[in-house]
Amino acid sequence: MTRRAKGALLPPLTRSGRLRAELYRTLRNALLDGRLAAGERLPSSRQTAAEYAVSRGVVEDVFDQLADEGFLERGVGRGTFVAPQIARLGTTAVEVISHPSCPSERGARLASNATCREPTEFRPFNAGVADAAEFPWKIWQRIHTRAARDLGRAGLNFADPRGLGALRTSLSHYLAQLRGMHCTEDQIVVFSSAQQALCAIALLLLNPGDSACLEDPGYPGANAALALAGARLVSLPVDRDGMRIDLLPLRAPEARLIYLTPAHQYPTGAVLSLERRIALLEWARGSNRWLLEDDYDGEFHYASHPLTPLYSLDSRSRVLYLGTLSKSMFVALRLAFAAVPPSLVEPLANIRTQLDTFTPPLPQLAMSRFMDEGHFSAHVRRMRGIYAEKCSQLLDAVAEMADVGWELPEKSTGLQTMLRHPDGTQVRKVAQSSGLALALLSSFRRARSRSDGLFLRFGALSLRQIQSGAAALLKAALVNR
Amino acid sequence: MTRRAKGALLPPLTRSGRLRAELYRTLRNALLDGRLAAGERLPSSRQTAAEYAVSRGVVEDVFDQLADEGFLERGVGRGTFVAPQIARLGTTAVEVISHPSCPSERGARLASNATCREPTEFRPFNAGVADAAEFPWKIWQRIHTRAARDLGRAGLNFADPRGLGALRTSLSHYLAQLRGMHCTEDQIVVFSSAQQALCAIALLLLNPGDSACLEDPGYPGANAALALAGARLVSLPVDRDGMRIDLLPLRAPEARLIYLTPAHQYPTGAVLSLERRIALLEWARGSNRWLLEDDYDGEFHYASHPLTPLYSLDSRSRVLYLGTLSKSMFVALRLAFAAVPPSLVEPLANIRTQLDTFTPPLPQLAMSRFMDEGHFSAHVRRMRGIYAEKCSQLLDAVAEMADVGWELPEKSTGLQTMLRHPDGTQVRKVAQSSGLALALLSSFRRARSRSDGLFLRFGALSLRQIQSGAAALLKAALVNR
Repeated sequence: MTRRAKGALLPPLTRSGRLRAELYRTLRNALLDGRLAAGERLPSSRQTAAEYAVSRGVVEDVFDQLADEGFLERGVGRGTFVAPQIARLGTTAVEVISHPSCPSERGARLASNATCREPTEFRPFNAGVADAAEFPWKIWQRIHTRAARDLGRAGLNFADPRGLGALRTSLSHYLAQLRGMHCTEDQIVVFSSAQQALCAIALLLLNPGDSACLEDPGYPGANAALALAGARLVSLPVDRDGMRIDLLPLRAPEARLIYLTPAHQYPTGAVLSLERRIALLEWARGSNRWLLEDDYDGEFHYASHPLTPLYSLDSRSRVLYLGTLSKSMFVALRLAFAAVPPSLVEPLANIRTQLDTFTPPLPQLAMSRFMDEGHFSAHVRRMRGIYAEKCSQLLDAVAEMADVGWELPEKSTGLQTMLRHPDGTQVRKVAQSSGLALALLSSFRRARSRSDGLFLRFGALSLRQIQSGAAALLKAALVNR
Repeated sequence: MTRRAKGALLPPLTRSGRLRAELYRTLRNALLDGRLAAGERLPSSRQTAAEYAVSRGVVEDVFDQLADEGFLERGVGRGTFVAPQIARLGTTAVEVISHPSCPSERGARLASNATCREPTEFRPFNAGVADAAEFPWKIWQRIHTRAARDLGRAGLNFADPRGLGALRTSLSHYLAQLRGMHCTEDQIVVFSSAQQALCAIALLLLNPGDSACLEDPGYPGANAALALAGARLVSLPVDRDGMRIDLLPLRAPEARLIYLTPAHQYPTGAVLSLERRIALLEWARGSNRWLLEDDYDGEFHYASHPLTPLYSLDSRSRVLYLGTLSKSMFVALRLAFAAVPPSLVEPLANIRTQLDTFTPPLPQLAMSRFMDEGHFSAHVRRMRGIYAEKCSQLLDAVAEMADVGWELPEKSTGLQTMLRHPDGTQVRKVAQSSGLALALLSSFRRARSRSDGLFLRFGALSLRQIQSGAAALLKAALVNR
């Protein structure tokens, strides 16, 4: 390539920003899009300065930076040339090319799974989360502000990846008092979400290809976390007494981990019988077998007294207990926790740093104080009544559905409930014609199956939304009988 | 098992909590630890009420819950018995058993990697993060409080997993203005940390077993994220012009992803030459090949004008650009971002929900306003001067090390710097005898190698800490010459 003797034509300067930055950007863009072509000689810095009406120092500075970056070549007495290799950059940088091929098979599989996305707008009946309208906002703000002041600038720096000491202590007291769990702060790991905890635990306990059992129908987040860890997933069906543990030897003799929601099966609401709990603990006595107990709404599922966790029945430290503050506080708090054997705390802390470094200290300190000052248990007690009232109004409003073949739950607690009907076609028709955001029970199953129920998530809905949603649902059920 | 006719001996009640809860806990613990043994008959509810001096209703209620849970069996006229199956529960639940075996090979490998843990206490020279003491706390507090008020209770609910619209827009303006990057908000994904972004991107782009290239020495977090995604890692050495791209065809002909820090190689500080940038982009034209550009401290590495990102040179949408606000703002903010081809935004959003649902809206809104109101660029400008001053004081204070064989950087920017010495033994001796928190260059290498340098992270240190640290370092270097 020969260098042209004549100087290149300088591009016009758009003066939208600071002069020096603008000159740099203008020249670089011209270099990238080919207006200043490889090998071309630029006008001297004196000429360039005159042309753009800027000082020669600014031009020298910009030429030097572009030379530092390799776009220009400068030599004393030789002038300034566009570097030959930029010809290889090809067309302009703004061109966006669509990717016909998937990034990777795993990526395509994970990317197509949207079951962990949550609605940002609540309507009947997609709102199985805490009702933010009832949250004691002022108390929280006061405690949060005080915690921010007390932490000061220390709150801007790293925090312990196991979780803030104060919160781990508060959580262990809470678990002892409200759940009767024997667990100290040395057994607690704080996470930003139950989802994050699930990922870290799956990565810790499983090798890629290991088999892991889940409930079917079951919680999609657990499914996603175990799949992400490369586990081979085996589903066990759920009946009125919870997960069918009796099928374990047949279906998953090699299972190393069983994920389950024993207190309030998600989504059916079944409570795992003591007989099956014991069978699970007996299974877990085998080497390298683990139980992962997700107590996602433990605060709300039992009228006034939470059920004994599997964790408390376990004498072999084979149960990892998972809890979240998303439902008892609010989802944007981003706090969840696991109670695990002490020997697994440091391993989990290390793995979580590889997933997302640490959980920020301020919400942890505020949460710890909210618990220690008694606001948490008072709030949970109050919300239990509110959700019970919502549920009872909902079930009352759709009571007539029982006359057209729907099975309504006898008693229901928590932030969601389930209506069953044996005719899958009818269930689908009701869901489609109601105009509501209804989830089919079948959408929580791993295998394709008929839809034998609707899952109604009402936690964050107002009583008014519940009433109007229930009316629409009842109407759709009566029409599609 | 025969049921004993005589009633069991009731355990004493410790009245530390609410009566009903205490009675439940006492009886359940006695059931779990065997004091109330399988098959035993409990005293009648009337006798029990009298013994504990509580109302009979409370006893009935507690017996019913324990029967619901399967611990007791009750029949009208038959009395209340301890369920036979609890004998299988074994010993008491408080027994903690240590686990001699590792949870899994992968788990053991991930758990033993502590390179992503960060110091919670800063000393010379472990502090390569933002100096929180210089952060404009009052301005931030004001903006944060206003953002909290404006979001109101909506800030307690879910947010878009791609990131808050306002922040994505602010970030795209920032990238356009400060980096000259052509990118719109539709190309931005917000994460809670660069580490989280690395994990999501690795899971998206790679199949397990795919090979991925990294710089050696290099950033441990990238190593961890790619390993976590099951990648086969291939290291390419780094010289004065950055990553040795020329070794790519020989060492990793099958590579699908190259992770690199082209603007300011971590940890050596090398700038990737234009020649190599072009070679990388040419490589990436092959099918299913990706470049991941980590611009971890782009704000600080170039005296006043940030270098052109690889992203801007790319005409094929093969570069994913990664930035963090941990260094330019503060680490506890938990905000990072990626600029990616638009077709990868939704896939990444879905994958991030499977890792950790979403990033809370409040810090995102506050950050967006902090940027839009010009505070961010002012802060970055100011900090650039502060870090430059720290670095220059540090290098001045250890200038004499050059007399005993150490190579000091000509110019150094950012929050850390590197001192090299050809004699590995001497480097180790200096590190050990200095009493400082010094990182060996070799600790950033994947392969065992001699230590040919020290990595000094000074960002969050005060000038005083830098002075005393530098004095100790110089002394150790002069003694171990």
